This record gives sequence, C-alpha cells and structure tokens, in this order.
Amino acid sequence: MANSPSGDSVLDRLVRVLGAFDGTRSSLSIATLARRADVPLATAYRLAADLVRHGLLSKDEAGMVRPGLRLWELANRASPAVDLRQAAIPFMEDVQSVVRQHTQLAVLRDDEVLVIERLSSRGSVVNQAQIAGRMPVHRTSLGMVLLAYSPNHVQESYLTRHPEAVASVDAVSFDFRRHLAQIRLRGYAAFDGRVDAGTTGIAVPVLDLHGTAQAALGVVVPLGFENSQSVVPALMTAARGIARTLGPAPA
Amino acid sequence: MANSPSGDSVLDRLVRVLGAFDGTRSSLSIATLARRADVPLATAYRLAADLVRHGLLSKDEAGMVRPGLRLWELANRASPAVDLRQAAIPFMEDVQSVVRQHTQLAVLRDDEVLVIERLSSRGSVVNQAQIAGRMPVHRTSLGMVLLAYSPNHVQESYLTRHPEAVASVDAVSFDFRRHLAQIRLRGYAAFDGRVDAGTTGIAVPVLDLHGTAQAALGVVVPLGFENSQSVVPALMTAARGIARTLGPAPA
Repeated sequence: MANSPSGDSVLDRLVRVLGAFDGTRSSLSIATLARRADVPLATAYRLAADLVRHGLLSKDEAGMVRPGLRLWELANRASPAVDLRQAAIPFMEDVQSVVRQHTQLAVLRDDEVLVIERLSSRGSVVNQAQIAGRMPVHRTSLGMVLLAYSPNHVQESYLTRHPEAVASVDAVSFDFRRHLAQIRLRGYAAFDGRVDAGTTGIAVPVLDLHGTAQAALGVVVPLGFENSQSVVPALMTAARGIARTLGPAPA
Repeated sequence: MANSPSGDSVLDRLVRVLGAFDGTRSSLSIATLARRADVPLATAYRLAADLVRHGLLSKDEAGMVRPGLRLWELANRASPAVDLRQAAIPFMEDVQSVVRQHTQLAVLRDDEVLVIERLSSRGSVVNQAQIAGRMPVHRTSLGMVLLAYSPNHVQESYLTRHPEAVASVDAVSFDFRRHLAQIRLRGYAAFDGRVDAGTTGIAVPVLDLHGTAQAALGVVVPLGFENSQSVVPALMTAARGIARTLGPAPA
C-alpha cells in the first residue's frame, strides 16, 4: 500500500475520512473533514475528489460532502450486519407492533454498543440510538446485557480498560460484576433514565449455542410505561426467534 | 493517489474489490476475489490483509473474506440511503401491516433499480429484491415507475442505452414510451410474472416538488392476490407520507 510522507497509507486516510462522519452532521466541508480526519487540507481535497469520482462520497452544490450511495451499496451487500438485521427484523416488527415505541438491535464492538437497527413509531419518546451509531456499554441496557452475556475474559478486559464504568454504578468493582451477574440471573437489563431522563431502556440477549450474546434486542419506553414488565417476555420470545433464524453459527 | 504499474489507483482497486461481493455469495476466497476484481493474486492478498486490518473486510477461519462490520458502520452513518430509509420505514410498516407480503423501496441508479429497503413477512412469495441489490429497470414495476417519473432526457438516454428494454415490451420504441405515459396516467405500475412467474409487482413513485420520482415504493404479492387493486391506494397514501417526511429537497 502506497504511503504518504507521514507514513499513512491511502487506506489509513480513507478510513479516517469516512470516520469523520460521525452522525452528528450529515454533510461536512472539506476543511472540517480535513481537521476531523487529521489530514492536510490539500490531501483532503484530493482524496475527497477521488472518493466523489468513485461515488464513495457525494458532493452538493455548496461543496459539502457526505457518504455516497455507492459506498452504502458496497457495504450493505453480503454484510454480516445485514444478515443479522434481516434475521431480526420480522421479530423486531412483532415487538414494535406490541410496544409501539422504539425497538432496537445492537452488537458489542470495540467496547462500545454498535446499533444495527432501530424501529420507531411516530410520537415515540426521545432516543439517542442511531443506526450505525455507537453508545457507551455501561450506560445502556443494550450494552449491559451484551457485556453480561460475554465470556468472562471480555468482561474483565472491559472493566480493566473502563474503570469509569465501574465507578459509575457503585464505585466498587465487585458490585459492577454483581450487577452483571444479576442481569444474567434475571435474563434482562432495565435502566431508568440512564441515557435520557424520561425514558427506560429494557434489553435481552440474542444468544448463540454457547450462551454468549451475539446481539442485544431492546426497547426504549417512557419512564413509568405501564406495560414495561410485560415487555420482557415479548423481548425474550422475539430474541429466541432471532437466534433460531440466525442458526447455530455465531453471526 | 498512488498508482500501481497498471495505472490503477488504490481506490480503483478498493472499489473493484468491494464490488466483487455481489450478494450471490456472502464470502469469497482471495483467489475468487482477485479474479472478480481483476487484480493480480498477490495484490489481492495484500489489499485484503490491509482491508481486514482496518475492519473493512472480515476473514473467517477458512480464509474466506466478506465485507466487515466497520465498513457497514462507516457507510451507514450520514448516508442519504439511511435518511431515505428512516423517512420511509414507518410508512412501509403501515403498508406491510395491511399487505403482509413484501414491501420495498428503491431508487434509480446508473440505469438500474437499487433496492434501499425491503420488509417481508414469514411465508411471503419468492422475491428477488435484496437490500443493496440491483434489478433491471424495465422488468420491474419499481424500475418502470422510477423511469416513468424521471425527466424526459433521463428516459430518452435510458432508451438509447438499453434498446433491449424497448424490444422487451413491444418491439416498437413508441409503445415503450406510451407504456411510460400510461404509468404516469394511472399513477402506478403493475406487472404480472415479469420477474417471477407466480408474483405480481405493484409500485408507485415517491415524488419531489417537481413531480420527479426520488424513490419508488412497491409490493410483491402472489399472482391473483385478491386485494391487489386495494394495494394501490395504500401505496399512494404511504408514498405521500414518505415524500412529506423527506421535505422539499430531493433526497
């Protein structure tokens, strides 16, 4: 792979450029792109022009760029995220038709929650989960259920790398582990107002044959939602359906 | 951009490598990848290793590669396809809950139908549309409705580049144009068995302020489906909802 004078490969820069679109703003100027991707402005202009030519970025009349439709197409064909989503969506719709708020699916990725799918109804409560967006593990029911159903070494390495996670619950690491054990005991995680004050997140694991979470299925409902207890069996039923559809191999 | 001895840039090769995953097989060997992407085998190995290191491809134990979750994540953030899909999905669910077969959304791209979203029920009829997959314009109700509601110059250039499209309907180009006019007159396209023998495709446009289709919304139902006429008003209603949600700017 060809390197720039700084030792960056084209791919390094490409990944940083694409990573500059973090979902907070859909279009970026080339100057902002250069700053966020940490590449020289001239490089950003040249790389953006190449990416636009290949359809990986698209450019509007004002010169602002955003990820292009061709990139979406290439990434969504044969993607494991799409397989997972396709298996999950009928069951997510079942949950959604009962709960009528937000139903979402996520995986654990680089110590973060990566949101794969979200179904929402018009008039649902506020919800920070965005498709392809990331959320912190220890502040979300999705994340905690993913961690609770991860192998022990994954939990321990998460705790080592994220001391703030431990502190955020009880300031004692033993209690964080007990919290994970409680989630396993109950089979679900439910947090009131940890992400947004007026909402409750409830999540269950989609398990593989080893009892490890390959994904988490959850809902976000208004705080004090009268049916929140009845949501858990619905989520568990749907999660089993997703696991069965995915088959024996981990996604 | 650095070039190989053949004059290919890294991006050229990258786009060809990602384009080798056409949805027919989810994983490819490096040898197949090299052949499909038309790059030397050694280059394919090196490029694949770089892409795996960046998470743009993932590699299984057998050495087969497929698009990685990181690529999906980068492509789905801030993507116009995701905006379109997010606007459309509540309305697609409404249609889906009435029709209970396949509900799908597509755009016109490089003279082909690019499928953005598909909702299906368990037990639905056969359907060749795949998310991020492509279908021929003149064999699908989605494609014909997209073409019928395209500006005149787009229709004419399609016909110039695709003489087989004209021949496929009536062997007379005038009739193909009349067919497009009829779709505009009725407001929808419906084809029996043109893609799969036992199915009917019905589609309507999602219009922008200029009366141009920014997307097409359609269903695939069994041939002879008793409610197929009642599907059209449901599709039209949902398409107006999608257009309103997208707002005045073309997607």
